[in-house]
Amino acid sequence: MSVDDTPRLLIPEMRELIYSLESELSAVCAYHVGLPGRYDVAPAGRGGGKHIRASFTVLCAEATGGSAADALGGALAVEFVHNASLIHDDIMDGDPERRGRPAVWRRFGVPMAILAGDALLGLAFEALARWDRAGETAIHDLARTVRRLCDGQSSDLCHDVLSGRSMSDYLRMIEGKTGVLLGLACRLGAMASAGPPAWLDKFEQFGVHLGVAFQLVDDTLGIWGDPALTGKPHGSDLRGRKKSAPVLAALAANNIHSRRLAELLARGVGDDDLGYCAELIASAGGRRWVRLETRRRVEAAWDSLARVDMDPMVRDELVKLVDFLVTREW
Amino acid sequence: MSVDDTPRLLIPEMRELIYSLESELSAVCAYHVGLPGRYDVAPAGRGGGKHIRASFTVLCAEATGGSAADALGGALAVEFVHNASLIHDDIMDGDPERRGRPAVWRRFGVPMAILAGDALLGLAFEALARWDRAGETAIHDLARTVRRLCDGQSSDLCHDVLSGRSMSDYLRMIEGKTGVLLGLACRLGAMASAGPPAWLDKFEQFGVHLGVAFQLVDDTLGIWGDPALTGKPHGSDLRGRKKSAPVLAALAANNIHSRRLAELLARGVGDDDLGYCAELIASAGGRRWVRLETRRRVEAAWDSLARVDMDPMVRDELVKLVDFLVTREW
Repeated sequence: MSVDDTPRLLIPEMRELIYSLESELSAVCAYHVGLPGRYDVAPAGRGGGKHIRASFTVLCAEATGGSAADALGGALAVEFVHNASLIHDDIMDGDPERRGRPAVWRRFGVPMAILAGDALLGLAFEALARWDRAGETAIHDLARTVRRLCDGQSSDLCHDVLSGRSMSDYLRMIEGKTGVLLGLACRLGAMASAGPPAWLDKFEQFGVHLGVAFQLVDDTLGIWGDPALTGKPHGSDLRGRKKSAPVLAALAANNIHSRRLAELLARGVGDDDLGYCAELIASAGGRRWVRLETRRRVEAAWDSLARVDMDPMVRDELVKLVDFLVTREW
Repeated sequence: MSVDDTPRLLIPEMRELIYSLESELSAVCAYHVGLPGRYDVAPAGRGGGKHIRASFTVLCAEATGGSAADALGGALAVEFVHNASLIHDDIMDGDPERRGRPAVWRRFGVPMAILAGDALLGLAFEALARWDRAGETAIHDLARTVRRLCDGQSSDLCHDVLSGRSMSDYLRMIEGKTGVLLGLACRLGAMASAGPPAWLDKFEQFGVHLGVAFQLVDDTLGIWGDPALTGKPHGSDLRGRKKSAPVLAALAANNIHSRRLAELLARGVGDDDLGYCAELIASAGGRRWVRLETRRRVEAAWDSLARVDMDPMVRDELVKLVDFLVTREW
């Protein structure tokens, strides 16, 4: 199956679970995931996100001998957790926009946004509890992932933005925030096909590496991305003086550009400085370092699957998805 | 086993799961549930809440032929969900205190409080996933409970405090907010003992009725309770013009006191009016109505178990717990 088919498979089931909520919450969650309903979800097409995690679940199921339909419950669970964490993270980070529309907390208030995230987290477990391909450990795997997501986000929150954070701390943090969920997506895919138990860990590792790569690309887009494509305001990461990977790599390079960048960040980055700041990060070598690290992570991901025997056609699809993930512009 | 033994059984397991969180979150969750740790959890003894839900799980397990140890995983799950919802509800309702101490959001900020609730919700599923007595539907039952808790809280949020809400709407809402979780507590207890499957629904119904009774008592304490015992500021429900059961019943009585009460509420209840307002509610008959409704709910609860054969000693313990629940002063 092609990755482009994932939404066709996924969305009817997402709709059923979300509309089974009985209060205003169903409309709020529908708005967030881009389902047509009481609230406007334009711009259409992109309104529901990229479903990348679900696509990995589906392809990893196919890679291990299962079908897309087998993977559905796992794919749903992963998408629900992802959406729950987006809603809550947007409150915590004060991000006003998501997918080119007002974030849930901006549109419906913080209390409703907290609840919508809680409800989607519950639906993730519900989807998995109903899943007939769930292995013995599936619920435990999901719970463990939620715990690690929370730990990752907590490390991010507790970090003072102006004090020093090492690149290795940062990579560990994004492994928790982004890696483990893509790891779960791939693990549940392998679980769907009931392949050899030893493959579960390999596929999880594959996903974790790719999740880190995914976040590194996100960090790059947070500085150099086109707001019309990313759905995030221009230079939002820099404005918030967020020490994402390119900034940390640039500062660590310790060259003349690094020092100018440090001065600029200490002073605060105004709207007029955004372009200059991005240039300094690139000149210091931050952009190049992140590109190389992304490539290293992708290689490590494929190394995890070195001994997995896979249908060449499925492998091609998986290669395409991974390439998309690291070359995407949104 | 006596109900007083519940904490001895429960707390070591709660501690293990909470301290398995790897970030600042473990200390924050420990603070909330009253475990000694990095943050002060005085006043001691009451700091961890009443564990009423867990006690019901344990006694319902014993009532159906199981042991307290059999019930542990279910009891933990219920306590974790309860604590998660308290942390999130306190943010939504702006309640500054919980168990005589600053609420988590006041002490650690809203972002950390959102995360702590998420983490505890995840731990609830983790506890249930590890539970060797969990029936086939346990995870689904928990997920369904989370969904109904969210729906209940959402109905509460969406209700404009000054517009009309009928008593039947209100009772439905508290069934969602409080009833279903005590229903789950009792259901998981019956599940622990692997009694007849038909008993699961009976025990759930028992718990749902008692949950509503519990909330009605809470509503009474929110007006006439002693702050030193309840851990909530004096008259907090009245100050927020919250239309809890006694207020709704008083207004519905439509007598001279009801009309004076309506005027006072429309004007806003200042600190000096709290005593007078509470008097009006009682004179209008609000307090008496709630006491009668509480009694009706307790009777309906016992009716649900009419055909359940139960060890008389366990029944005595259960009777004591129910009596405590409706006569407690905190």
